[in-house]
Amino acid sequence: MPHPDLLFPPDREVRAIARELFALTRDLPLICPHGHVDPALIADDAPFGDPARLFVVPDHYVTRMLLSQGIPPAELGVPSVDGTTVQADGRKIWHLLAANWHLFRGTPSRLWLEQTFADVFGVETPLSPDTADDVYDLLSERLAEPAYRPRALFTRFGIETLATTESPLDDLSAHARLAAEGWGGPGGRVITTFRPDDVVDLEWAGWAERVERLGEVAGADTSTFTGYLTALRSRREAFIAAGATSSDHGHPTAATADLGPEGAAAVFERGLHGTATAADAESFRAHMILEFARMSIEDGLVMQLHPGSVRNHNRWLHATHGRDVGGDIPQATDYVRGLEPLLSRHGNDPRLRVVVYTLDETTFSREIAPLAGGYASVYIGAPWWFLDSPDGLRRFREAVTDTAGFYNTAGFVDDTRAFCSIPVRHAIARRVDAAHCARLVAEHRLDADEAAETVVDLAYRLPRRIFRLDRSAA
Amino acid sequence: MPHPDLLFPPDREVRAIARELFALTRDLPLICPHGHVDPALIADDAPFGDPARLFVVPDHYVTRMLLSQGIPPAELGVPSVDGTTVQADGRKIWHLLAANWHLFRGTPSRLWLEQTFADVFGVETPLSPDTADDVYDLLSERLAEPAYRPRALFTRFGIETLATTESPLDDLSAHARLAAEGWGGPGGRVITTFRPDDVVDLEWAGWAERVERLGEVAGADTSTFTGYLTALRSRREAFIAAGATSSDHGHPTAATADLGPEGAAAVFERGLHGTATAADAESFRAHMILEFARMSIEDGLVMQLHPGSVRNHNRWLHATHGRDVGGDIPQATDYVRGLEPLLSRHGNDPRLRVVVYTLDETTFSREIAPLAGGYASVYIGAPWWFLDSPDGLRRFREAVTDTAGFYNTAGFVDDTRAFCSIPVRHAIARRVDAAHCARLVAEHRLDADEAAETVVDLAYRLPRRIFRLDRSAA
Amino acid sequence: MPHPDLLFPPDREVRAIARELFALTRDLPLICPHGHVDPALIADDAPFGDPARLFVVPDHYVTRMLLSQGIPPAELGVPSVDGTTVQADGRKIWHLLAANWHLFRGTPSRLWLEQTFADVFGVETPLSPDTADDVYDLLSERLAEPAYRPRALFTRFGIETLATTESPLDDLSAHARLAAEGWGGPGGRVITTFRPDDVVDLEWAGWAERVERLGEVAGADTSTFTGYLTALRSRREAFIAAGATSSDHGHPTAATADLGPEGAAAVFERGLHGTATAADAESFRAHMILEFARMSIEDGLVMQLHPGSVRNHNRWLHATHGRDVGGDIPQATDYVRGLEPLLSRHGNDPRLRVVVYTLDETTFSREIAPLAGGYASVYIGAPWWFLDSPDGLRRFREAVTDTAGFYNTAGFVDDTRAFCSIPVRHAIARRVDAAHCARLVAEHRLDADEAAETVVDLAYRLPRRIFRLDRSAA
Repeated sequence: MPHPDLLFPPDREVRAIARELFALTRDLPLICPHGHVDPALIADDAPFGDPARLFVVPDHYVTRMLLSQGIPPAELGVPSVDGTTVQADGRKIWHLLAANWHLFRGTPSRLWLEQTFADVFGVETPLSPDTADDVYDLLSERLAEPAYRPRALFTRFGIETLATTESPLDDLSAHARLAAEGWGGPGGRVITTFRPDDVVDLEWAGWAERVERLGEVAGADTSTFTGYLTALRSRREAFIAAGATSSDHGHPTAATADLGPEGAAAVFERGLHGTATAADAESFRAHMILEFARMSIEDGLVMQLHPGSVRNHNRWLHATHGRDVGGDIPQATDYVRGLEPLLSRHGNDPRLRVVVYTLDETTFSREIAPLAGGYASVYIGAPWWFLDSPDGLRRFREAVTDTAGFYNTAGFVDDTRAFCSIPVRHAIARRVDAAHCARLVAEHRLDADEAAETVVDLAYRLPRRIFRLDRSAA
Repeated sequence: MPHPDLLFPPDREVRAIARELFALTRDLPLICPHGHVDPALIADDAPFGDPARLFVVPDHYVTRMLLSQGIPPAELGVPSVDGTTVQADGRKIWHLLAANWHLFRGTPSRLWLEQTFADVFGVETPLSPDTADDVYDLLSERLAEPAYRPRALFTRFGIETLATTESPLDDLSAHARLAAEGWGGPGGRVITTFRPDDVVDLEWAGWAERVERLGEVAGADTSTFTGYLTALRSRREAFIAAGATSSDHGHPTAATADLGPEGAAAVFERGLHGTATAADAESFRAHMILEFARMSIEDGLVMQLHPGSVRNHNRWLHATHGRDVGGDIPQATDYVRGLEPLLSRHGNDPRLRVVVYTLDETTFSREIAPLAGGYASVYIGAPWWFLDSPDGLRRFREAVTDTAGFYNTAGFVDDTRAFCSIPVRHAIARRVDAAHCARLVAEHRLDADEAAETVVDLAYRLPRRIFRLDRSAA
Repeated sequence: MPHPDLLFPPDREVRAIARELFALTRDLPLICPHGHVDPALIADDAPFGDPARLFVVPDHYVTRMLLSQGIPPAELGVPSVDGTTVQADGRKIWHLLAANWHLFRGTPSRLWLEQTFADVFGVETPLSPDTADDVYDLLSERLAEPAYRPRALFTRFGIETLATTESPLDDLSAHARLAAEGWGGPGGRVITTFRPDDVVDLEWAGWAERVERLGEVAGADTSTFTGYLTALRSRREAFIAAGATSSDHGHPTAATADLGPEGAAAVFERGLHGTATAADAESFRAHMILEFARMSIEDGLVMQLHPGSVRNHNRWLHATHGRDVGGDIPQATDYVRGLEPLLSRHGNDPRLRVVVYTLDETTFSREIAPLAGGYASVYIGAPWWFLDSPDGLRRFREAVTDTAGFYNTAGFVDDTRAFCSIPVRHAIARRVDAAHCARLVAEHRLDADEAAETVVDLAYRLPRRIFRLDRSAA
C-alpha cells in the first residue's frame, strides 16, 4: 500500500484537506479514454509473461533511461529489427534493472513501478541489487495465479471503460471477440479508438502500400483521394460499431490546413507516385486534420490531437530496434497559428470536440488554455508522456486553470500500454488534483464543498462526458 | 470582506509574515497607470446599469469562458456587429452566469467578481443558481444608491491616479470635462494615455480613413509621412495637456525597425494607396515604435509595449461581435531580436523609459528580465491579461527577480475596463507580493525591514515614479 | 555565518530533513569543473586588490544591474575600450554599490556577495549607505592578510579541482607554473579547459589573424582547413598535458552540422579571404561541433555546450567597454533540431560525453531532459548564468528529474570568475538540492537513505565522474 500521504504537501492543514478530497475519488471507477493496451490482452486473457517481459522490455520509459546510461536495449531484451539475438533471460534483464534502480529516483517510472509492485501485486520488498531475485520470484508467483490474469485485474482495478488504439487497417477482430463475450462494442468495457496516422503520414515508410490495404479492408478504391476519404469514413463506421467514441492524431506539428479538394487530391497523387516532398507530407497531414474534423462533425467521434513529437530522433535506436522504443523527442509546438485554419472554420461548432495534448508545457498558459477557454470545441488533454508525472500534473493545473478553469480540461488519461500500472497512474493523478484543490482551499480561493465536487468531476464525470462515454452506453 | 489570509501560503510562519507585510500596503492609495475605464464614466458620474450590464456583458474574461462551454455571446447580451438582437434582459443573463458559476472555480474572474460583490458592494451571499435572484437584487439595490456612483466609488477606492487609454482621434472631451471639474489634467486624478495603434496598423480595416481624420483632428496634412508624424506629435502634446504621462503600443509582435525616413514614407504611401502587403504592415508597425521612442525622448511620455496578441483569432466571434470580446490569443514573442533595433539606438538613454509587458511567460526569465536588468531604459510591466492571476503574479516574481530584482519592475497595473473591480485587483497583487516577500524572509533571503520597504515600493512608490506620476502633479 | 536554515522550505518537517541532508554535503570537497578564474591568480598568489576591484569592477552581474538603473559602467571603474578614464577610486565605486544595494534584493548577486563577506571574510555588518565605509575597511583589512591570498583561500575552501578556461592561443604558461609547483597538470588541483570559440567563430572580429596565430602556437600551417584541424588537435594535446579533461563551446545557437570535408574547407577559405557570410559563420560553427566531437571520441575530452547567448546585444556597452561586461542576452534555443546532426552520428557512442547547458529554461523539460534521458552521450549541465539562482536551481530539478532522473545531470558548476564566491555558490546549490530532496522525502517519493546518497552524488561523485576528474589523478 502506498503511504496514505503520498504526494500530498507536507503542510499539516493542506495535507488534511488533501486526504479528505482524495478519499472522495480513490474508489471511483476508472475512466480510461485513451491508451495503448493491446485489446488481444483482454480478449485472450492469457497469463502475463515473466516480470522482465511485463515491466521492462515493453516500457520505453525504462529502456530509454537505461540506454541514457549506456545500457544497450538488446541487453534489456528489446527486439531487434534485423532479428539479431537479444537478451532472452528475464532474470538477467531484471538484474540490470535492479542494479540501476537508483537512476529512476524522482521519476514517475519509479513511482509507477514501485506502486504497481506493492499495490497491484502485494510485493512490498524495496527493489535493490540485493533483493532483485526475491522481488522477481514474488512477482513471478503472483503472475502465475488466476487472480492476476488480465480480466481479473480489469475487474479488480474498477475500470469502467478502457479505450485501446487501432489503425484503420486493423480488422478489429480482438474487439469483435470482446464484444461477443460481453466485454466490448458500443458502451462496452473495452472499446477502440480510430488512429489513422499510418495511412495519413506520407513520410512513414510504406504509406502507399498501406493506402492500398486500406482500400481492401474498407472495400473501396483508394487510388483516388475521393475513394480514400470514402474508405476512411467507412472504417470510422466500423470503429464506431466497435465502440469507438474518439479518434487520435499524432503529427509532428499542430499544423492544420485546407488545401481544397483539388489541392489535397494533387498531393495525395504525388504521394502514391512517390514524388511527394516533405512540404507535401506536412500539408497533407495538416489538411487531413480538417477532413477528419468534418467527419467528426458528422459522426460524433471526439478528436484527440497529440502533436509535437519528433519521431525516431534517435536514429540508431530506430534503425536497430524500430519505432516506439524511446527514440522520440518533443519539440516546440505552435498551436496558435497551427490550429487557426481548423478553428476559424469549425472552432465554435458545438458538434465538434477537440481534445488537445502537448509535450511543450510552455503552451499550457500561452496557447492551449486561451484556446480552450475561448472556443466552444476545444478541451485540454491531460499532461502527456514526458509531462505525465506528479510535478507535471501540478504545473499543468497551475498553468491552465487561470484561463480555462477546471471544466475545459478533459480529465486524466493514462495513455499507457502498461496495463498493470493503470490504477496506479490514475491514483497519482487523483492525488495530485486533490493536493492542488487542497491548496486552493487552504488559501481561501475555493470553498471546501466546491473542491469536493471538483475532484470528483475531474476524476470521473468530466472524462466520461467529454469523451462521450456516457451516451454510448449499451 | 475577504478572508484575512486570502492567497497567503498556509505555512503558519510564512502566513504570519505575509499578514504583517500586507498590512503595510492594504490601505495605500491606488496608482492605476494603465487601464481601459471609459473616462466618460467618471465625467458623467451616472449610475451604473444593472448587474449583468456591469459585470457580464462588457467582461470578455467572463463571456469567453461561457462561450468555451457553448453559450453564445448573444445570449449574454454582447452587442452584435450587424445589429441582430441579443439578450436584453439582465436577469436572464445573470441566471446564465449563476448556472455556470462552477466554470470559474480557480480563475481570477471568480476571485475578482466574488471579492467585488463582497468588498465593494457588501453582498456576501455566495452566487449559485439558487441565489442568483437574491444576489442580483442586492447588487441592483446598491447600484441605485448615490454611494455607488463612479465618483463616490473612486474616492472610496482611494485611487490617487487613474489613467485611461485613448486613440489620437479622440477629442479628449471627457477629459476636458474632468479637468474643468478639478478631476483631470496634468497631475489630476484622471489622466489619459496616448494609444496610436489604430492609426499605425495598416492591417486594421479603415486605416487610411483614420489617418485622414487624424489630420483633421490635429490640423495637419497627413497625406505625407512627414505630415503624419507632425500630426502624431501634435496629438501627443494635446494628450500631455490632458495629463498623459505615457503612450501604449499593442502590436502582434515585439518587432522594432528603422526603415529610414524614405523607407518609412514609401510604406506609408503604399498604405494610403491600398497596395501595402502584410510585410509592409509589420515593418511599418516596427518602424513606428522607433519614431515614437524618439518622440518620447523629446516629450517624456513613458512607452508601454504590449506585444504578442493575435487579435481576432476567433474569426466567427470577430465577425459576429467585433473586437475586444474575447477572441484574441497570445503567441510566442521574441523580444531579444525584436527590440534589438530600438535598444541598440536608444536602450541606454536615460531620457527613454520603456515598460515591456508580455503574454508569453517563457520570456520572463529568458528575455525580459535580462533586458530590463541590462538596459537603462527598460522596465518590466506587470503580468498582463491571461497572466494577471494569483499564480501568474507569483510565477512572475519568481522568474524575474533573480535577474532584474524588484526595482526594474514597474508595479501593478489593473489594465481593466471593469471599474468596480479595481481595488480588488490591486489587493490581490498586494497580497501576492506580500506572500512572495514573506517566503523570502522565511527562507532567510531577505531581512524583514527590507521586505517591508519593498512591498510599499512595489505597491505605491515604484509605479508612481516609473510612470512619471510624481512629477506631473499640478 | 549564514542562517543555518538559509534557503530551506519553512515547513518544519521538510526543514528538518533538509538540514540533515545538507549536513552530509556541507563539508565535502568542492569539484569545480567549469569556471573562469584566471589561472595566473593562483599561480601568482598575489594579494587581491581593494574590495571594489574584487567585488564590483569585474562582476558583470553587478555592473549590469547598476547600468539598468542608469549608472554608467565608467563610474564603476569598468575599463573603457578607448582608454577613456574611468573611476579609479575604489571607495567611490563602493559607495555607489552601497547606495544601490536595495536593487539587489532577491537576486543571487546579493546572496553571493553577502555570504562571501560573512562566510569568507567574516564581515557580518550588513551593507548599507551608512555602513559602506566600515564594510570597505573591514574587507580591506582582511584582504591585506596572508590568509586571504588566493592559495590560502583555495585550501580553506576545500577545492579539490578547479578548471579554468583558456583559448587554444593561450600558451598555458600560468598552468605550467602551477604544474611546476605541484598545483597543476593532469590530476592537479588547477587544470585548464579547451575553449576554441575565438578561432572558430568567423564573426568574431580578428578571426583570420587568430587562426594564423593558432598555426604559430601549434607549429602547423593553418592556411588550409586540414592544417587548421591539425593545429586544433595539437593544442588539445597540449591542454590535456596541462590537465584538461573537457572542452567548452559557446555558440549563439545549438546548431550542429556535417558540411563534409570539402564543404567545411570551402567555408574556411571564404573566412580567410574575408568573404564569408553570416550563414557561412553559422554553418562553420555548427560543423566544428562535429569535428570537435570526433576529436573528443579520440582524445576523451568531455564536450561542454553553452549555446543560446546573443553576445553583445547591448551594442553601446560593447562599443564602450568591450566583451563580457553584461551586454549579452539569452535567446530561445532549439536543441532538438540543432543537436540532431551530432546525435544521429555519435549520440549513442559510449566514448562521447556531451554536457549541455541552457539559458532557455523552457528547454529543460521539453528538450534537454528528454535528450539526456534517451542518448548515452548526453548529460545536463547545471543551471547557467541567469538561471544560476536558488529559484533557478529549484525549477531545474523540478523540470528535469521526471525524465532524466538525477544521474543524467552533471552536478553543479560555479562558472565564475569571482574566485572568492566559489564556496558560497556551491553551498547554495547544495542547500537547494537538499531542500529539493527533502520535499521528495516529505511527500514519500524518495526514501531518506536514498536521498542521503543522492545529495552526496550530486555534490561530489557525479561531477567528478562525469567530467572525468577521477581518472586523471596523477
